[in-house]
Amino acid sequence: MRQGQGVFQFAASFDSIPLRSIPLKMLTRHTLGNHEQMTHFELLTAEQVNEIHAASLEILENVGLLVRNENARALFARHGCRVDNATNIVKFPRAVVEQYRAAFPPTFTFHGRDPKYDRTIPRDRPVIVTGSSAPDLVDPVTGQVRRAYSDDIARIAHLINALPGYDVFSISTLAEDAPPGYHTIARLYPSVKNCVKPVRCNALNADDAEKILRLGALVAGSETAYRARPFITGHFCPVVSPLTMDVDSTEMLIYFTARQLPNYATIVPNGGMSSPLTLLGTLAQGNAEFLAWATLAQMAHPETPLIYSSLSTLADMRRGNYAPGAIETGMLHIAHAQMARFYNVPSGGYIGLTNSKLNDAQAGYECGMSVVAGLLGGADMFNLGGLLDALTTFDFGKAVTDNEIALMLKRLQRGFEFSRENMSLDLIAEAKPGGTFMDKPQTLDLMKTALFLPDIADRNVRDRWQKQGALDAQARALKRVREILARDNPAVFSPEVDARVRAAFAGLVKGDSVPLNSQQSTVNSQR
Amino acid sequence: MRQGQGVFQFAASFDSIPLRSIPLKMLTRHTLGNHEQMTHFELLTAEQVNEIHAASLEILENVGLLVRNENARALFARHGCRVDNATNIVKFPRAVVEQYRAAFPPTFTFHGRDPKYDRTIPRDRPVIVTGSSAPDLVDPVTGQVRRAYSDDIARIAHLINALPGYDVFSISTLAEDAPPGYHTIARLYPSVKNCVKPVRCNALNADDAEKILRLGALVAGSETAYRARPFITGHFCPVVSPLTMDVDSTEMLIYFTARQLPNYATIVPNGGMSSPLTLLGTLAQGNAEFLAWATLAQMAHPETPLIYSSLSTLADMRRGNYAPGAIETGMLHIAHAQMARFYNVPSGGYIGLTNSKLNDAQAGYECGMSVVAGLLGGADMFNLGGLLDALTTFDFGKAVTDNEIALMLKRLQRGFEFSRENMSLDLIAEAKPGGTFMDKPQTLDLMKTALFLPDIADRNVRDRWQKQGALDAQARALKRVREILARDNPAVFSPEVDARVRAAFAGLVKGDSVPLNSQQSTVNSQR
Repeated sequence: MRQGQGVFQFAASFDSIPLRSIPLKMLTRHTLGNHEQMTHFELLTAEQVNEIHAASLEILENVGLLVRNENARALFARHGCRVDNATNIVKFPRAVVEQYRAAFPPTFTFHGRDPKYDRTIPRDRPVIVTGSSAPDLVDPVTGQVRRAYSDDIARIAHLINALPGYDVFSISTLAEDAPPGYHTIARLYPSVKNCVKPVRCNALNADDAEKILRLGALVAGSETAYRARPFITGHFCPVVSPLTMDVDSTEMLIYFTARQLPNYATIVPNGGMSSPLTLLGTLAQGNAEFLAWATLAQMAHPETPLIYSSLSTLADMRRGNYAPGAIETGMLHIAHAQMARFYNVPSGGYIGLTNSKLNDAQAGYECGMSVVAGLLGGADMFNLGGLLDALTTFDFGKAVTDNEIALMLKRLQRGFEFSRENMSLDLIAEAKPGGTFMDKPQTLDLMKTALFLPDIADRNVRDRWQKQGALDAQARALKRVREILARDNPAVFSPEVDARVRAAFAGLVKGDSVPLNSQQSTVNSQR
Repeated sequence: MRQGQGVFQFAASFDSIPLRSIPLKMLTRHTLGNHEQMTHFELLTAEQVNEIHAASLEILENVGLLVRNENARALFARHGCRVDNATNIVKFPRAVVEQYRAAFPPTFTFHGRDPKYDRTIPRDRPVIVTGSSAPDLVDPVTGQVRRAYSDDIARIAHLINALPGYDVFSISTLAEDAPPGYHTIARLYPSVKNCVKPVRCNALNADDAEKILRLGALVAGSETAYRARPFITGHFCPVVSPLTMDVDSTEMLIYFTARQLPNYATIVPNGGMSSPLTLLGTLAQGNAEFLAWATLAQMAHPETPLIYSSLSTLADMRRGNYAPGAIETGMLHIAHAQMARFYNVPSGGYIGLTNSKLNDAQAGYECGMSVVAGLLGGADMFNLGGLLDALTTFDFGKAVTDNEIALMLKRLQRGFEFSRENMSLDLIAEAKPGGTFMDKPQTLDLMKTALFLPDIADRNVRDRWQKQGALDAQARALKRVREILARDNPAVFSPEVDARVRAAFAGLVKGDSVPLNSQQSTVNSQR
């Protein structure tokens, strides 16, 4: 328990970092990003990007933001914003926003428990993150939708750890069985235990946050070790559209930022409901909302790395339905990525979602169209793994087909690998008109690397596919889930670490990934 | 039969156009295309585009093309190419290629039976064309795969005529019941009869071509009327990779071109089999193959409009499977579109294919990822409607979901519609932080136009979706097929025209779209 003792000082020592104003030292533009080297598809001209930026400044200066969190209002006031104490409306002089946005750092790093999985964007783009916090899940055995439990999360973490397309595990579901006070820890423990990749989660309040950090230190061995490699990234949605900062998520953004723990926020305007029912209006307002939280983060701690993360949508007003699988979501991602390049910050968000209730054709094309729009539009990070039904339901099979989509995106990002040699002109001359390339040594050499070779997408002739059971992609994906979950998980940390964690958190959920049996998959699934 | 008499002179009068060398009058670069006004995603730098072009010239000059068609060899020889009469290898001095490619016209028009459906690319991009010539079809009633018949084609034409996403009907399947000598007419007649949109088909030989033209004139009323609006576009694959021109398709390319009838060709190199197993090698060879047929077309008739159409792929060499649904196909389309812009010609091809045997998640994401890659890469034309299993099998439900994909692409092409008004800044100020946009007049005004409202993609909450039968996208699409086919088809031409056509072609198939019954859908389906 020696390490444990260090750990118990951990939250306190984090808390000792005062919430004070830290002077801005460097307002120079950073140049570590590699956006310059890429070409991107653009939906806006450079002039239009300027106009959106100007419109967002106008919104922040004249309409302002309703800030419900007191610490945030204090930070804004201390750094030059005008706070109306009667209404809690904060107005941003444009010089203030311009000053802070010029200092946004150009990169963001996700740390893994294993450093091999560290990912820095935009350099390592596209970074694929799972979708997160679905309350429900499609039971992988019965096919029924039910609440999700901590043992589901353990299995999902096991799966995501094994699937090479994923870079970051953002905890896919809630845990219905979380003991009181363990809302987040009951999700985070099975995640960290079963996955060495960077883990992303939110925190509800200071108590929750302290438990997260304590868990991090216990696993890392000490507070110092965790600080050196903070493998848990905080994520929050402090802005409730239109133009409102809430109490709790805003508090957590400040908490993580002031302690220099990696975190970022996502903006979620929904045109027709919480923003105008036009792409441009939703973009201008969403961009203002990004500038608001990003400016707050810089005020809480200068040079805080961030991600311009978005999930901007237009609502289907026929029934007021949320439509994250719409092509307009993809278009908004392209435009937000363009704004992010204007600010020289990494970008991304919930790109690759679907409204479908099943992993069917709709799930495939809604997801597939958005992610390619996002990638070619310049987004660096994609939250896309495994969610159906507008982020409400996790599906194991979808996580496996999304892994292939992720690998296709990574292949696309690799591009043409231009070289004289790759043009194979000698080979074309050698094969001669009417010849073949099948028997050439180059063909044998390259057959495993020239193209992405999918595991789930079927390319067999029909007869062979039929002999293999005539399964659809979802059935093949579920078969793969079963195979992976039946294997030992090399990610699971040592019994010593586990004992340390369990000793610190009495009554914690088990957190083990148990192979799927033929019955209902979870012991907890009495809904 | 007065008009009929005119018609019988038709083929003869076409034939009277001699296959002579027509001097090039205009070698100036055209400026009618609108490529300049668009931004596109690019996988190659301008310098790399130049290198690919140079590599293709090098291939054509040093390796050459095996040209099996005698007329083509004569045309090449007459216009400055070097023909080896022993080997039938044609070599292209680069000055010859450069001279002809500088005169490629920048636009291509598809004519509809109804002028409302005329489409000119690139202006009207994205132009959506159905996939074509599948031998098989998934029976829409039994779900079994079987050969396709002429009455299937009538139904497909009916469906495509009704679905707004489609611009051109390229005849989706073969017709197993075609009477001898009517191979193409048995496909074309049900198509033209049931669809007023432009129809695309191939022709096997001069006899076939004459029948096509006779049918066109009979439907249009006269040869002159048909010539004014040639609503049948010829399509050929004269180049067999690597670098070979065949006898028959090449003959048809010359035939249509010399008669100034709209037509174009598609190149289909398959890396690892008929081209190098590298993206760059396949691109360089495919580009050479495009230059070869396009140059031949200009030699057959100067200023012949063309499309840089491609279906370049890399083979999955694990089993040598064809992989048109691979992400690499999408990447090759991006690069071919870039080459097409370099040549200032419209581009496109078979973009949005899948290897899947079912309209499942794989079909969705393979198709969805490729089409967005193609659109953002600058392709103007997409052959994508209804094909499964690597172009071998037509599926009615897939044609309906592809229609929605097409409409999503068109929404994407419309872009952000930038205006100060669309930024809705007054509305954002009016709604105030924490307010709502749901009750605003703008929201009501725009609810039907701000975003694409899908018909098949489901956005309901789960309960409502379950009450509606918990159908997947394919089941909903097949329901829509049944509804459309049960309706009268306004496209069907008059009994007079029909009588004229049937009198000219004794023993022709019926060509009527019959509603689906509950049994096997086709009278001909005894496989």
